[in-house]
Amino acid sequence: MTPPHNPEERPVGALLAPDILAMLDESPELIAAETEELHPADLADVAEAMPFAEIPRFLRTLPKDRAAAVLEYIDEEVRAELLEAMSPEQAAELVSAMTPDERADVLEELDEEHAEDIVEEMPAEARRETEQLRRYEPDTAGGLMTTEFVSEPASTSVEEALRRVRVIARSGRREAMHAVYTTETDGRLAGVLSLRELLAAPEGAKLSDVAWSEVQSVSPFADREEVARVISNYDLVVVPVVSESNHVIGVITVDDVIDAIQEEQTEDVQKLGGLEALDEPYMQIGFWRMLRKRAGWLTALFLGEMLTATAMGRFEKDIERAAVLALFIPLIISSGGNSGSQATSLIIRSIALREMRLRDWWRVALRELPSGLALGTILGMVGFTRIMIWSHFGWADYTGHSTLVATTVGLALIGVVTFGSLTGSMLPFLLKRLGFDPASASAPFVATLVDVTGLVIYFTVALLVLRGTLL
Amino acid sequence: MTPPHNPEERPVGALLAPDILAMLDESPELIAAETEELHPADLADVAEAMPFAEIPRFLRTLPKDRAAAVLEYIDEEVRAELLEAMSPEQAAELVSAMTPDERADVLEELDEEHAEDIVEEMPAEARRETEQLRRYEPDTAGGLMTTEFVSEPASTSVEEALRRVRVIARSGRREAMHAVYTTETDGRLAGVLSLRELLAAPEGAKLSDVAWSEVQSVSPFADREEVARVISNYDLVVVPVVSESNHVIGVITVDDVIDAIQEEQTEDVQKLGGLEALDEPYMQIGFWRMLRKRAGWLTALFLGEMLTATAMGRFEKDIERAAVLALFIPLIISSGGNSGSQATSLIIRSIALREMRLRDWWRVALRELPSGLALGTILGMVGFTRIMIWSHFGWADYTGHSTLVATTVGLALIGVVTFGSLTGSMLPFLLKRLGFDPASASAPFVATLVDVTGLVIYFTVALLVLRGTLL
Repeated sequence: MTPPHNPEERPVGALLAPDILAMLDESPELIAAETEELHPADLADVAEAMPFAEIPRFLRTLPKDRAAAVLEYIDEEVRAELLEAMSPEQAAELVSAMTPDERADVLEELDEEHAEDIVEEMPAEARRETEQLRRYEPDTAGGLMTTEFVSEPASTSVEEALRRVRVIARSGRREAMHAVYTTETDGRLAGVLSLRELLAAPEGAKLSDVAWSEVQSVSPFADREEVARVISNYDLVVVPVVSESNHVIGVITVDDVIDAIQEEQTEDVQKLGGLEALDEPYMQIGFWRMLRKRAGWLTALFLGEMLTATAMGRFEKDIERAAVLALFIPLIISSGGNSGSQATSLIIRSIALREMRLRDWWRVALRELPSGLALGTILGMVGFTRIMIWSHFGWADYTGHSTLVATTVGLALIGVVTFGSLTGSMLPFLLKRLGFDPASASAPFVATLVDVTGLVIYFTVALLVLRGTLL
Repeated sequence: MTPPHNPEERPVGALLAPDILAMLDESPELIAAETEELHPADLADVAEAMPFAEIPRFLRTLPKDRAAAVLEYIDEEVRAELLEAMSPEQAAELVSAMTPDERADVLEELDEEHAEDIVEEMPAEARRETEQLRRYEPDTAGGLMTTEFVSEPASTSVEEALRRVRVIARSGRREAMHAVYTTETDGRLAGVLSLRELLAAPEGAKLSDVAWSEVQSVSPFADREEVARVISNYDLVVVPVVSESNHVIGVITVDDVIDAIQEEQTEDVQKLGGLEALDEPYMQIGFWRMLRKRAGWLTALFLGEMLTATAMGRFEKDIERAAVLALFIPLIISSGGNSGSQATSLIIRSIALREMRLRDWWRVALRELPSGLALGTILGMVGFTRIMIWSHFGWADYTGHSTLVATTVGLALIGVVTFGSLTGSMLPFLLKRLGFDPASASAPFVATLVDVTGLVIYFTVALLVLRGTLL
């Protein structure tokens, strides 16, 4: 896990906040110089540790670019409140100084109306860039990319390119500059080289001599998982977003991909836990919003689980005759559920990591069948032994048929655990085949499925083993 | 999720493999030139798509540095087999050409004996670096770092530093070069600047004029979660590893951190699913190894779940009198388990993301109590209605006391779901407080805990509601 912030240790920013608050009253003009060596992430912590009303005053003591950089690191909710509290002109000035991708993300968090007001106050070029980026869904490559990057015609000499790069670096604009893209005369993408490779290039060479012609790129409509896959597969720091006509329209930097990976992971864990992804931190989400996200799946699973009552209804007479059978119902169905959730989480993760394809389902089934049998046999033997021991020492009374009861429980466990492992491993494939996210509520869903079937298996075994004695 | 590889689409490498295999026989000397524009990751796919015996021949057609880069991307298991099949001299030559961090990782995957043989054949400097890195645990900053980076005295002029950087870049060595570290005269870390900032620096400046003096760094003993936190918090591409005496001893690049994040996430999902982290892909792990990883927790949970049989034993007489009560046991305990696993996965993720601290437990409890009551009331009403409808239409026979049975089930659900939400949210705090990973088998562990208590709640409510009628 890579937490964005560790409140267990007091962060640098929070420690500094009192000093900076004091300076706000006494010598605000010194704050910019005093804090100039700090990372904007730390200054964002300073801001978050202040009373809300002081934050705009603090940001005004900083140069505009610096204030914009700090704003990029401030907590989403606080940032939205801050921008909504400012006049559209003030907000537009700050937001325009952000990188285009951050700008689009920040506006995404505001009310549509506020966002529009701010966009209208932006300088023409920033407005154009912003409107272009806001056309893409936030979870796609287009939504993650920034539009400021460095590209040069492939025919440029290395010296000239280096001179141009230095001019851009000195301009104070905030282009992604880890890679330089080279273009054909018609502007289509020709190649790529890293800043390091540009520095290493021999005197007198052209960019086309030293650039790589195989460029890893993504489409603006690629989802963020695909972007993360390309970045991690090829160990990239930046990946270009390329239009259908093969023009670079933006680049995505690795820091945004890390954030995307973490959000995906949070969603997956929450879906595995059987609820809708919250999309907000637990401590910040409103009570009713959270309730809605949880109640939906919980009720759906409950409705499914009602089938257990129906299934058991068919065996009510048997339970009346041998109440001892009821004692082991929770033990048996929970074992099925546990083995199912093991198998499910293994397979979900393997599918997510693309270790296996959809058509590998039968290979998995061939592995889970013996695994389930082996695990079921282990639990069956433990269960059998438990009943025999309790009965031997008279700790429990199994109406004089303890061996038969123990055999029933043992055999049922083998069946239920095998079924659980198989179902748990196959369900993610089925969900994916049907176009759903395999992680969606899989573990509790498997448990429900296995509960109903587990009861049927248990009572069927009981009828076979106990007919003529207890039943 | 960010899969390292997407077998759903045929990768470039696999498509090329037949051509390259043909060239191996006809014109091996042309392979290097033909493939020189390909990313080493794609060439690794080429190698993996070949018969195993052809891979060494293929690697020998490439320049040594190129072959080493390809080897870095080849699947761990295949790579280990390849190196073990070569003579120690051949292996040492290839491994020495890798970056020091990859070199240490690769040797980690081999038998201790093979690894030693290879290390002994390495040139002195590579051997020294490798032995230094192998002293650190693979999951720590020391185990992730590489020892090749660029540092210059702070008093160096910008021009001189740039000239030196170009010399290093041209040397073909594979230093991490996204950042240049500046040092005091005694070698201690003084500051940092990015390659971009070096290019942007004004003529005539010294490094100390333009470098940042606040450097985000990690200790070699920091675990990989901490490294990921620093990298993601400050949007870094590279983070220096600094000794106690404040000397830079290595750097960790973001690509290795992404791999670490993904491994952590796999572990978390598997632990949530109630098994030990596999540490190997599902399709590759041996049958018995996998069984061991699963059987341990499954048996532990089974032993815990046996308490349900003990708890039910106390109510056996009540079940004999009112078998109808048994029908709803699976429904009630699974609802408790589902609400518990929702709460657990929410809290585990929040703790992992450091959205909350240990001492926030009571805030969470204060949120989960009303959430649990509300969710329990919803399920209770659904359950009540279900029983009344079934009874009304004669689909089920609740021995003439359907309203009382429905009331029992409804009230029990409120109690069980509230208890499940509270237990599920508190358990991760407890596990963390006791020094365990909160993700360890939490969801099934909560389910077991809630099952036992759920039964007691259910039968207690039943005794109160049904005394004098059914019981």
